[in-house]
Amino acid sequence: MPRIQATYLIETPHAPSDAAEAIANEQSSGTFVDVSTETDDLTERHGARVEDVTVRATVDEPSLPGAETPDNSSYAGSYTRATAQLSYPMENIGTSLPNLMTMVAGNLFVLKELSGVRLIDLSIPETFAAAQPGPQFGIEGTREVVGIKDRPIIGTIIKPSVGLSPEETAEIVETVVDAGVDFIKDDELIAGPSYSPVEERVEAVMDVINRHEAETGETVMYACNVTGDVDEMLRRHDAVKDAGGNCLMISLQSVGLAGVKRLREESDLPIHGHRNGWGAMSRCPLLGFSYEAWQKFWRLAGVDHLHVSGIRSKFYESDESVIASATECQTPIASQKPVMPVFSSGQWADQVQDTYEVLGNADLMYLAGGGILGHPDGPGAGVTHLKQAWEAAMQGVPLEEYAETHEELRTAIEHYGNK
Amino acid sequence: MPRIQATYLIETPHAPSDAAEAIANEQSSGTFVDVSTETDDLTERHGARVEDVTVRATVDEPSLPGAETPDNSSYAGSYTRATAQLSYPMENIGTSLPNLMTMVAGNLFVLKELSGVRLIDLSIPETFAAAQPGPQFGIEGTREVVGIKDRPIIGTIIKPSVGLSPEETAEIVETVVDAGVDFIKDDELIAGPSYSPVEERVEAVMDVINRHEAETGETVMYACNVTGDVDEMLRRHDAVKDAGGNCLMISLQSVGLAGVKRLREESDLPIHGHRNGWGAMSRCPLLGFSYEAWQKFWRLAGVDHLHVSGIRSKFYESDESVIASATECQTPIASQKPVMPVFSSGQWADQVQDTYEVLGNADLMYLAGGGILGHPDGPGAGVTHLKQAWEAAMQGVPLEEYAETHEELRTAIEHYGNK
Repeated sequence: MPRIQATYLIETPHAPSDAAEAIANEQSSGTFVDVSTETDDLTERHGARVEDVTVRATVDEPSLPGAETPDNSSYAGSYTRATAQLSYPMENIGTSLPNLMTMVAGNLFVLKELSGVRLIDLSIPETFAAAQPGPQFGIEGTREVVGIKDRPIIGTIIKPSVGLSPEETAEIVETVVDAGVDFIKDDELIAGPSYSPVEERVEAVMDVINRHEAETGETVMYACNVTGDVDEMLRRHDAVKDAGGNCLMISLQSVGLAGVKRLREESDLPIHGHRNGWGAMSRCPLLGFSYEAWQKFWRLAGVDHLHVSGIRSKFYESDESVIASATECQTPIASQKPVMPVFSSGQWADQVQDTYEVLGNADLMYLAGGGILGHPDGPGAGVTHLKQAWEAAMQGVPLEEYAETHEELRTAIEHYGNK
Repeated sequence: MPRIQATYLIETPHAPSDAAEAIANEQSSGTFVDVSTETDDLTERHGARVEDVTVRATVDEPSLPGAETPDNSSYAGSYTRATAQLSYPMENIGTSLPNLMTMVAGNLFVLKELSGVRLIDLSIPETFAAAQPGPQFGIEGTREVVGIKDRPIIGTIIKPSVGLSPEETAEIVETVVDAGVDFIKDDELIAGPSYSPVEERVEAVMDVINRHEAETGETVMYACNVTGDVDEMLRRHDAVKDAGGNCLMISLQSVGLAGVKRLREESDLPIHGHRNGWGAMSRCPLLGFSYEAWQKFWRLAGVDHLHVSGIRSKFYESDESVIASATECQTPIASQKPVMPVFSSGQWADQVQDTYEVLGNADLMYLAGGGILGHPDGPGAGVTHLKQAWEAAMQGVPLEEYAETHEELRTAIEHYGNK
């Protein structure tokens, strides 16, 4: 069976190769006491291996607490940063996705040998990837559902995020559907509370969307937040489908890998993966997961869309990091489909040109709340200004120049640009 | 409906009260654009509220990247640490456990207003707690299964962690069962690979344990690692039960909340919760979750035992933190049962007295690998020395004094104490 490659950014008061070995031991056959059954043959077959260690920098202060400095070591008093590539035998976990997580991202985060440890990449063999459900729709399948081929899918988030009845939700949906959005999602803060059960909300919303489709021939995708217990999500999937719904949204970190995979196995609909909570394991640069590594688990479990924040967003992430995340979503994992990166948070025309230029394509969802609803000439003009901004970017025309002949864009630049 | 209280440790380049308001807005009804449907009435009913902000310290450097310093603020150039208590309307989520996670620990970790944010406590109303499965066995139920009332449950972990066939596993189990352990667990790195399917392993292991019970009348608990996909875990539960098994182990972070809860709903057996991977969201002091907050989710989902590492362990955590974790496990959540804290990692007699003294009771599992198998007089003496150490601690006799009349303890101190 092939091996799974995992790359870590580590920081350590030991020799970096020793620290890498500590990870290999902790995560496979190592014990701190001689066990007669731990033969060389067993270690050869089941042990993790350090494939490469490359020193990157040395720092004076540890990034994380609790690392133990060996007194007698030449490394005492300083901390070496390195990338460490390890390989793990796939035989140890077979094709189990939850156990992949334990193997490459389990106890290693609490090792004393490390003052920093972050899983920054993961290379999945085809035999492992092929055994996972993976995205059912991905980029192409999602485009087919909404019938949009050559530009981003323009969408919005229902606000206020909480407190609206199904009827009030449907009224807002009517406004934005009339305005011309391709995609609408629930906020992550509303799933199925008693004041807006999924069954009632999706009926009310799809009633509007189906009517719109009958009138205009245009399909709007509605990502209904079904986050909940396993059976609850399966029931909600059926309710969404029965109402003619065309997308499910889940808060990935809140449900977990096994739950997401179970839903995917039963689902006939695209799954919109919301990453809320992921910052808890990613914002510290020397701990947890890079987005590149983290997103692979959820894609193998079966999501079709993944949030990546946005350029110049209201969140902490750098623009470079956002674009790297989106590029990663668009890169296939072995034979599994690429997924739609979802840009959102404080987006309007302003970020379009940079997004397109750096990403190099328009295979994405571009979500705006205030960027649509806050347009001085109304939500219709809000949607139009975004489409115009993407036309400009994709035609290589400077935004200001395109705005000269496109009123909605011009007004948006005057309005949002001065905020 | 009652409100859910969440307390955060925050660090911010803004006024701490403004930063706390930013969390409240992000996690409930706030938007950055006026929405006519967001009425005062809606905010009153569905908005999160800042209940208290207490400044703790000021630092010169941000703990996390990406915090935005307001130029015109009197706070510019420094970062204030504070505890912020927020309350959230339970109405927003009903009694949904995954959605509780999104509400109190969602997008807030990536806010620009913060250079540090950690959920340090969570107060669960009885109406919420009562709607969760919670621990089925807890401390008392676990004690009943193994028939041990007045001392810790002494256990061990099967090593090597990976690579053993079911028959080889059963041989090791025979050794440690004969040695007198009360509890045995799989390592988290072995669940159900093709070389040791759960069904075959649990049969082989329970065969040994059941024979031992028939001969001696003593029940040994075996936590069989069933970590996997939802249906796989349910099938494995049945296989464990059919083989006369008496405990399931799960890697919590790898399975996720919805999966753990689903298993608990179908389970007739105690669930041993392994926390591998939790360090990714906890080791950075100004990010993620404290153990106190984190463990509540898993207990409400239904685990009966929870790992807390151990005093003077091979992991990074301080002894104070370990004891605080254990105390928290022993504290009921509303009407839900307390759970068994599981001490492990580099444990032998050495840590017993301190553990008992600071914790103040013996309601725990005490696991040793090398501390049992590495004893010079064999595993039987290894188990006996741990029992003797606990007798000494609970009788208030100094370890060295007790060792004078207890050979296995004396030998252990000579052997391990000089390592």
